[in-house]
Amino acid sequence: MDNRPIGLFDSGVGGLTVVKQVMKVLPHEETIYFGDTARVPYGAKTKETVTKFSEQIIRFLLTKDVKAIIIACNTASSNSYDELIRVFPDIPIFEVITAGVESCISATKNKRVGIIGTYATVRSAAYERGIKQRVPDMRVFTKACPLFVPLAEEGWTDNDIARLTAETYLDELLKNNVDTIVLGCTHYPLLKRCISGVVGESVTLVDPAKATAMKMKKFLEQNDMLNGGEEEKHTFYVSDHTPSFDFLCERLLKKKYTAEKTDIEKY
Amino acid sequence: MDNRPIGLFDSGVGGLTVVKQVMKVLPHEETIYFGDTARVPYGAKTKETVTKFSEQIIRFLLTKDVKAIIIACNTASSNSYDELIRVFPDIPIFEVITAGVESCISATKNKRVGIIGTYATVRSAAYERGIKQRVPDMRVFTKACPLFVPLAEEGWTDNDIARLTAETYLDELLKNNVDTIVLGCTHYPLLKRCISGVVGESVTLVDPAKATAMKMKKFLEQNDMLNGGEEEKHTFYVSDHTPSFDFLCERLLKKKYTAEKTDIEKY
Repeated sequence: MDNRPIGLFDSGVGGLTVVKQVMKVLPHEETIYFGDTARVPYGAKTKETVTKFSEQIIRFLLTKDVKAIIIACNTASSNSYDELIRVFPDIPIFEVITAGVESCISATKNKRVGIIGTYATVRSAAYERGIKQRVPDMRVFTKACPLFVPLAEEGWTDNDIARLTAETYLDELLKNNVDTIVLGCTHYPLLKRCISGVVGESVTLVDPAKATAMKMKKFLEQNDMLNGGEEEKHTFYVSDHTPSFDFLCERLLKKKYTAEKTDIEKY
Repeated sequence: MDNRPIGLFDSGVGGLTVVKQVMKVLPHEETIYFGDTARVPYGAKTKETVTKFSEQIIRFLLTKDVKAIIIACNTASSNSYDELIRVFPDIPIFEVITAGVESCISATKNKRVGIIGTYATVRSAAYERGIKQRVPDMRVFTKACPLFVPLAEEGWTDNDIARLTAETYLDELLKNNVDTIVLGCTHYPLLKRCISGVVGESVTLVDPAKATAMKMKKFLEQNDMLNGGEEEKHTFYVSDHTPSFDFLCERLLKKKYTAEKTDIEKY
């Protein structure tokens, strides 16, 4: 048994969709979340900058004595994972791409899948690489949807503007006859109903968060690292106190949590 | 005469609309621009964070021996100006709010004006304060338009989504019968045609950039600080190399410039 907390981080508050799944799948685990609300979003920034920010955050999480880390952000997962495991070899680090890759391979019937995410995630080609390594003849179509994050943060998740934006972004994927779309950004599950309305019921939407939480559970079980306690404890840190944290916390976790501010540039 | 450069900065690339006006109004001045593309946008962040970032940028600009600084960002102008002139008393600092306030007072006929900007700019109430101090019976209506920045950065400045978003945001101001609207974010001039189409020709749109450049000209003239040279020299720095800089540079300045990357967190 290992009663230390699991660390999770995201560019901002989208990663709370992953916290939610960890709470469900691993209800006895303590979690520590860091949201980089002072520098959000990462999606239009370069690999170098995203990696530097992620390294600072992992150094911060290590001061909290975490036993494992989930990169609850597709942009950081797809751009920085390889570098992060090199820089921090002593802590198990999980990313959200692999779970998304495996889930979409299981879901598709016609072997034509779509990946939507930020510019940086799409540019990294991490999903295509992961899918092609496992199923070389799979057809993968990608589309960056940069407006989805600000729409989700504005709370415009199901109005005409969200629908028109989704239609504009997803038209190409639909023309390519995909039967599965990976929500390759932790914010996008907030727009799931709107996206589903646009693509129709015949297209499966894959959210990598749940599968990532399942992967963590398996790892902790196999290594005898599950938390032996019964107490629920969840701690949240941010780099800036913005209203988006409270808004999403209530909406996703159905509970008020207070986030503590930390000066991440020091790490 | 003073041949040192003028420093300008913004959260990202929106401030290039101010650089453009300075180039027009003061064609012989050398300029140094810093765009905080690694931490953009500032508009949903707190006063404390925006002020900290602005202080780092001014410390960087001072290493370039600038003779004066323009805060080419409404969010930093409205949230951080008072603190910045306290921390840096030896360098003349100009902001964009005062020029916007004066221009809108000149433009309105019915004394009913609208201010649009980021959440942080609207929350600061800097425009209302400035207007009410000069014309106490003016009616000021404000509206935060957070989707306008990502729309401008996506290049969606005149499509159905931009129009529907503008209609949604501006409806309230129009119902309040304003005859003047201040574009209180340096990105918004990029959406001017779309906004104008929504509000109609009877509403005057005020862009504070030109009036700010005129203020700088007057200051340099009065203090015998104009540049005596003839050579055009414009230098650009960013905190991250993102495509938005090249895109807006070409669109606004009609010329290719190369931006140098600097690690702003060190300052």
